This record gives sequence, C-alpha cells and structure tokens, in this order.
Amino acid sequence: MIELNFNKGNGLVPVITQDYTTGEILMLAYMNQEAFDATLASGKATYYSRSRQKLWVKGETSGNVQLVKEIRVDCDNDTVLFKVEQIGGAACHTGHRSCFYKKIENGSIRVIGDPLFDPEEVYSK
Amino acid sequence: MIELNFNKGNGLVPVITQDYTTGEILMLAYMNQEAFDATLASGKATYYSRSRQKLWVKGETSGNVQLVKEIRVDCDNDTVLFKVEQIGGAACHTGHRSCFYKKIENGSIRVIGDPLFDPEEVYSK
Repeated sequence: MIELNFNKGNGLVPVITQDYTTGEILMLAYMNQEAFDATLASGKATYYSRSRQKLWVKGETSGNVQLVKEIRVDCDNDTVLFKVEQIGGAACHTGHRSCFYKKIENGSIRVIGDPLFDPEEVYSK
Repeated sequence: MIELNFNKGNGLVPVITQDYTTGEILMLAYMNQEAFDATLASGKATYYSRSRQKLWVKGETSGNVQLVKEIRVDCDNDTVLFKVEQIGGAACHTGHRSCFYKKIENGSIRVIGDPLFDPEEVYSK
C-alpha cells in the first residue's frame, strides 16, 4: 500500500513529469489522493488543477494525454515522479514540448525551441 | 530580469533538481526569493528548508553540494529546474543517489539501487 504525505501541501503533492525515454522534464503539476487513484486506475496522468479546483486528466482538451510508464515516490513520500509517454509530443499548453522552455542566461530569459502546435488552434476547438 | 511567481506557494516555488549529464531527477525542494538570489550569486544550489524554516545550502553538512550548470523556468514562472553536477554522487539524505528511489510496482513499493553512503556516519560528524 502506498501512503503519500499530503499534509505539507494542504492535500496536494507536486508531481514531476518526465519523458520515459529521453529523461526530459515535461512539466510539474499537483495531485490529491483522488487524482493519484485515478492515475493508477486509468494509466493516464491525472492531476488536480489548482486554478480550476478540480481533477484534470492531462490532454483531455488537446488530446495530448500522458501514458504513465513508471511511478516513483521520493524519500519522504511527499513528491511523485511520473515517467510518461507524451502523446502528441507536446506537454505544455503553450505548444512547447516541455513547460521548461525558458533558460536563464546572464540574468535574462532565452526561449529554447519552438512550439509544436498553435495553442489558439488547439484550445479554441 | 527574472520574476518568479512566489504567490501560489506562499512565498515559495518548487525546484526540480536534475543531473545535468544523465537527466536523472535527484530531488525536489523549495526556494524563496533569497534562496534563488543566493543560488545565482554562488552557483551552488540553495533552497529554503520548510522544516527548519531557513536557507539551506544543499550539502553544507554532507559536503554533497550541487554545482548549478543550467537554470530553467517553466511557462508560468512558478517552478524552477536546476541542472546540476552532484558532488559526492548522492543527493538524498538517505544516501541514495536520487530521492526518487522508491518505485511503485503492482501497488507496492520497491526500492531501486543501494545507498552510496551511510547517513548515520555522514550526519553525526
């Protein structure tokens, strides 16, 4: 039985989502117990949206779902790591493959890579 | 100028720490503005310890400091990614290389890999 520690995060734990083949970090999101159970049951990464305050099956709008290949838990059970197959190639709502497309260089931000899709096209459907 | 969004996390943002050569995720910790500034100034990963409620230069006790090779920020500026060189090989206070040494398999936890050091020896010095 897996007992995550949701106390430190007011009922939520952060989840790091990593490409299971390349090791690239795609995004960070949050889960409550219900989202964790839904992920285990469905095999699709399911988070808790802090802004919308509800369960969020990643890719439910864009089609870019995440098939969970492996789940890791950290030493003190308060952070989760999903290793996933990112359907559609892009995890970020901006169309970028990874949400971490901004690199700090000499005190400024440099954007790394180009978006793989046009968010206005995908999310206005 | 980099403006991180500390509002959603009560003054803190989560930081994912990844090995800059292998892509392995080593740990997740938290930073406030002061920890971020200290990291930029020193080049050593500096976090904010939620339990001790103070700045925490990673490795200050164990000697396993993290030399920050690259910093990424996510799409909405509320999560940071450090790509680091992990001095001493192990990031976790348990002696494991990564804090994410527990894998979920068929509803149970399986420990992956062996500790690289004995925590009792390192932290009782």
